[in-house]
Amino acid sequence: MSKLSTAPSPLLYADSERDANQRYFSGIAAPDAFLAFGIGRKKYGVFNALEFARARKESSLDVVLSLEDCRDRAKRRFPHTPIGIAEIVATLAHEFGRKRFVVPDNFPAKLAFDLFDLGLAIGFADGSFFPRRDLKTPAELAAIREGNRCAALGFAAVERILESSTIKGGTVRFEGKPLTSERLRYAIETACLAAGAIALETIVAAGDQACDPHCRGTGPIRPGELIVVDIFPRVAATGYHGDMTRTYLKGRASDEQRRLVATVRAAQQLGLRTIRAGLNGRKVHDGIVAFFDSKGYRTTRDATGARGFFHGTGHGLGLEVHEAPRVSAVDATLRKGHVVTIEPGLYYPGLGGCRIEDVVHVTATGCELLSKHPYRWELA
Amino acid sequence: MSKLSTAPSPLLYADSERDANQRYFSGIAAPDAFLAFGIGRKKYGVFNALEFARARKESSLDVVLSLEDCRDRAKRRFPHTPIGIAEIVATLAHEFGRKRFVVPDNFPAKLAFDLFDLGLAIGFADGSFFPRRDLKTPAELAAIREGNRCAALGFAAVERILESSTIKGGTVRFEGKPLTSERLRYAIETACLAAGAIALETIVAAGDQACDPHCRGTGPIRPGELIVVDIFPRVAATGYHGDMTRTYLKGRASDEQRRLVATVRAAQQLGLRTIRAGLNGRKVHDGIVAFFDSKGYRTTRDATGARGFFHGTGHGLGLEVHEAPRVSAVDATLRKGHVVTIEPGLYYPGLGGCRIEDVVHVTATGCELLSKHPYRWELA
Repeated sequence: MSKLSTAPSPLLYADSERDANQRYFSGIAAPDAFLAFGIGRKKYGVFNALEFARARKESSLDVVLSLEDCRDRAKRRFPHTPIGIAEIVATLAHEFGRKRFVVPDNFPAKLAFDLFDLGLAIGFADGSFFPRRDLKTPAELAAIREGNRCAALGFAAVERILESSTIKGGTVRFEGKPLTSERLRYAIETACLAAGAIALETIVAAGDQACDPHCRGTGPIRPGELIVVDIFPRVAATGYHGDMTRTYLKGRASDEQRRLVATVRAAQQLGLRTIRAGLNGRKVHDGIVAFFDSKGYRTTRDATGARGFFHGTGHGLGLEVHEAPRVSAVDATLRKGHVVTIEPGLYYPGLGGCRIEDVVHVTATGCELLSKHPYRWELA
Repeated sequence: MSKLSTAPSPLLYADSERDANQRYFSGIAAPDAFLAFGIGRKKYGVFNALEFARARKESSLDVVLSLEDCRDRAKRRFPHTPIGIAEIVATLAHEFGRKRFVVPDNFPAKLAFDLFDLGLAIGFADGSFFPRRDLKTPAELAAIREGNRCAALGFAAVERILESSTIKGGTVRFEGKPLTSERLRYAIETACLAAGAIALETIVAAGDQACDPHCRGTGPIRPGELIVVDIFPRVAATGYHGDMTRTYLKGRASDEQRRLVATVRAAQQLGLRTIRAGLNGRKVHDGIVAFFDSKGYRTTRDATGARGFFHGTGHGLGLEVHEAPRVSAVDATLRKGHVVTIEPGLYYPGLGGCRIEDVVHVTATGCELLSKHPYRWELA
């Protein structure tokens, strides 16, 4: 047998708007689950009549098959069985002379069991399903830069609003109304949309809200509160994300707040100086944990939650907001071509939260920033 | 054993921004995969430190467990194994005296196999994983109505732009530039955002583009072309969707276009008149197919794609844009409380496409519209 015919055949069944492997493999955004598989170097996709013509035009698949045709052939192969996706896969497997497929960890369990019952072997990849997805090409780096450019437009919108708003008593006012997280989020979302990106679940969390790092934030912004703004837009044309965080404050910060922000920024710079290909990401993370400890910022955890620095230093970024590799307390060797965020943060209810996040491309000797926006934060 | 302790225990592992069952079960939008399970009538979730405090505040789970604590207990139970999600599930299963879980069809296959290796039995639900998710409560009906209210704001924005744009030669001009699908989509997206909903993948497809019903549409809008506008916004606060389609034309339609649009609207009214609890959705669909045939609108399919009416009449709507039940060529009994779209369409390259879509709540005697917007389409 040739090398091609013995290479493991990937098999996917997912929609490609939510599933990053499917999007990566097929190059098309489709809202409903579809079958895709590889035979040798060729990529195949199976689409229903609704998507067939578009898939032929827009996908990066080598061959687009008709689901209806495949179903007809499956009916002939399994004349006494209701035809589902498993029977269609078994029919295609027979036609291509395959008995074994490699599937992603998140492959639908029911379909995997059904395929097993039909005599097919299902294996999982050791590590990343598409290892190349972890190592970004120049086109992917450009797409991530574009995502970050959109995020930066969001920060610019936030800064314009904070600078043109006024402090009256205990409130921040903008356009005659109390300024809220929702208003700032709307400004970010429309700035991203106008640039061709969709910013979902943007975080604009002020005061103690920001101490839950995934709290999206709600209600009025108060003067003198730290405001964590985390924007991770997805560029509509490519599906790739940016991911940046800045922390702001309207009015005058306290000395304690200034020390907190300066320490987080110093920790981020430490991370950016440390990172390079070949290093264990855990070392970068441990270095930041030790740095915070040395500055007196302790991390504690109890039944009501955690304080200090209790999330990872960063994560891979691409078609997913969180993808391989992690830069955290788990071992993960950084490789040339990885794209990761560096986003230390400190959170203390009462004082508030601060997180600063940029995105880097890991190189042999260090890293290259893929995000760019000033760190000005105390806005009068 | 009591009845409670023998009831099947659902087990989920997914994020709840993309997975509708997880969102339904947990009542919280969380971007990273987490464990959730039911024991008797109690709902449990397992969250890491990053999400723990927020999950306790925002989720509808009865008990929120700490992932770190669960991992520590798993380490004691499996001292010689690297601890992954499977070991944590096995530890919890032991603590709760369970040996069997029911999982959704899309449960991650790798985790299912790992649980099997650890001695747990994994079953799948017969039909919907949460049958109650198919039958909408008054609060869910209100959330879907709200989604449709946002969609209607999008149509209003489109109509304002089409009416205030001008025809010059073969182009439609708005604000001094050729009007494009992208410009209309931006108007829809910002109108939805301002109302608190996110309209992803909105379709604004004109002319032959609309003949691929999932083509999003791109480039200039030309006078006299049918423009299919399909908006399915997700309300940020609830996660529920609206889903409506209107077809427009700027300028004057041809007689053939008028007949096409009138026939699609008549088919939709036929569907709305037919639908009621107890009926097989297939009957509604077959009725529309027969109606189109009787009017001379044939459906054909060849190697380059399909023409005519080649998608389902409708689909369930809720936390997912497409969910149970389908109203299509497959058998599916409609029940009181189902929410489905009714969206016949006809597509003929050269002439263009037309689809008109509304959303109904199935009742014992008929249906109640959950969407509302005029059907005015030929805009001078």
